[in-house]
Amino acid sequence: MGNESGQNFQRRHQQIPLAVIKRLPVYHRYLSDLHQKEVARISSSELAAKIGITASQLRQDLSWFGSFGQQGYGYRVDELLREVSRILGLNQNIGMVLVGAGRLGRAIIHYANFKRRGFHTKAIFDNNPEIVGQIIDGIPVYDISELENYLKNHSIQIGVITTPATVAQEVADRLVRSGIKGIWNFAPVSLKVPDDVIVEHVHIGESLMVLSMKLQQRKASGPDS
Amino acid sequence: MGNESGQNFQRRHQQIPLAVIKRLPVYHRYLSDLHQKEVARISSSELAAKIGITASQLRQDLSWFGSFGQQGYGYRVDELLREVSRILGLNQNIGMVLVGAGRLGRAIIHYANFKRRGFHTKAIFDNNPEIVGQIIDGIPVYDISELENYLKNHSIQIGVITTPATVAQEVADRLVRSGIKGIWNFAPVSLKVPDDVIVEHVHIGESLMVLSMKLQQRKASGPDS
Repeated sequence: MGNESGQNFQRRHQQIPLAVIKRLPVYHRYLSDLHQKEVARISSSELAAKIGITASQLRQDLSWFGSFGQQGYGYRVDELLREVSRILGLNQNIGMVLVGAGRLGRAIIHYANFKRRGFHTKAIFDNNPEIVGQIIDGIPVYDISELENYLKNHSIQIGVITTPATVAQEVADRLVRSGIKGIWNFAPVSLKVPDDVIVEHVHIGESLMVLSMKLQQRKASGPDS
Repeated sequence: MGNESGQNFQRRHQQIPLAVIKRLPVYHRYLSDLHQKEVARISSSELAAKIGITASQLRQDLSWFGSFGQQGYGYRVDELLREVSRILGLNQNIGMVLVGAGRLGRAIIHYANFKRRGFHTKAIFDNNPEIVGQIIDGIPVYDISELENYLKNHSIQIGVITTPATVAQEVADRLVRSGIKGIWNFAPVSLKVPDDVIVEHVHIGESLMVLSMKLQQRKASGPDS
């Protein structure tokens, strides 16, 4: 079923709008929750209410992925969860390396249930001789000089950058030259990469600034606006 | 100048579109960088190119904040940086408490130069007796039962949630009942709060799923698309 399924995927999913893509992890979260609670079916209006969108929006989103649910019967939670997981590329055994074993790097390795979702951090790289050689949660820390050689010999799809901003671009360049096509960047710097490389940037500091600014605006415009 | 400036702020900034707000931290980052490099002036086309937008987009964004720059002379970096910082509500001595002193909480306390930008984490709360009583980077860790009492007696604007998802809503409820109007949420759960409370959610896990999905789509549609 591998190939045919791949082609169906291609035909059906190529043009999914970014707004829909961004809602999928939210669907995934709620569906996982329902599945754990052994809820078998859910109506589109119930699921939509949980997520905070309209039922018609939900039905429209899901229509991108084929036909789910029957009028009056709602959606089968397990079926929908499986499809959403598949589209999200979960449970595919995705190999990751993480560069930068500081506090943030260590926190990220632990965050959420990456492993349960098929993401495996295989190696960590750092330039600090005191950290190199350690095992962090079962994952070995190598010297950054070994990065290229490691990537040549292992199947790695995603590079995670948790270095200081000053070296993030250099690290990204090295990952890209080694053939990495997906970068998950936590450094507060916009990375320049070729068009065929996908960067997801987690804007931690910028998020705090946006919060601060909204509070500032709220204060300026008074409690009634 | 306090009051009048406040009113000007209100009049001028009330209706700034969210898209512009979201670009401001990026402007801030590049301008800080230029300022540190002692660059005095920059043209709109140079600055726009750094940021990856068009010069006309840049001029339009900045027109929300009054008139900057002169035809042919570009922008004064220090002036623009000061104004962007002011609009972002930086350097205002914003007090924060952080709930959840696990790895992510500890990493967040360290992330970026919050202090330099006027954000001060005054207290940490946790329910783990082994952590309560510690001092993490000069910040005391209190038992979560002391949260309400602490907030009653200190000037705190932002509550940071780095707890597990299962307790995040309860923590948010407690922060809100104590009068906190700004929540910076790292827990992978959508918080329900009253309309006058602002939540900024850092979607760490969802960001990885989006990256994974884009890689999946790229693979399915082949290298040429």
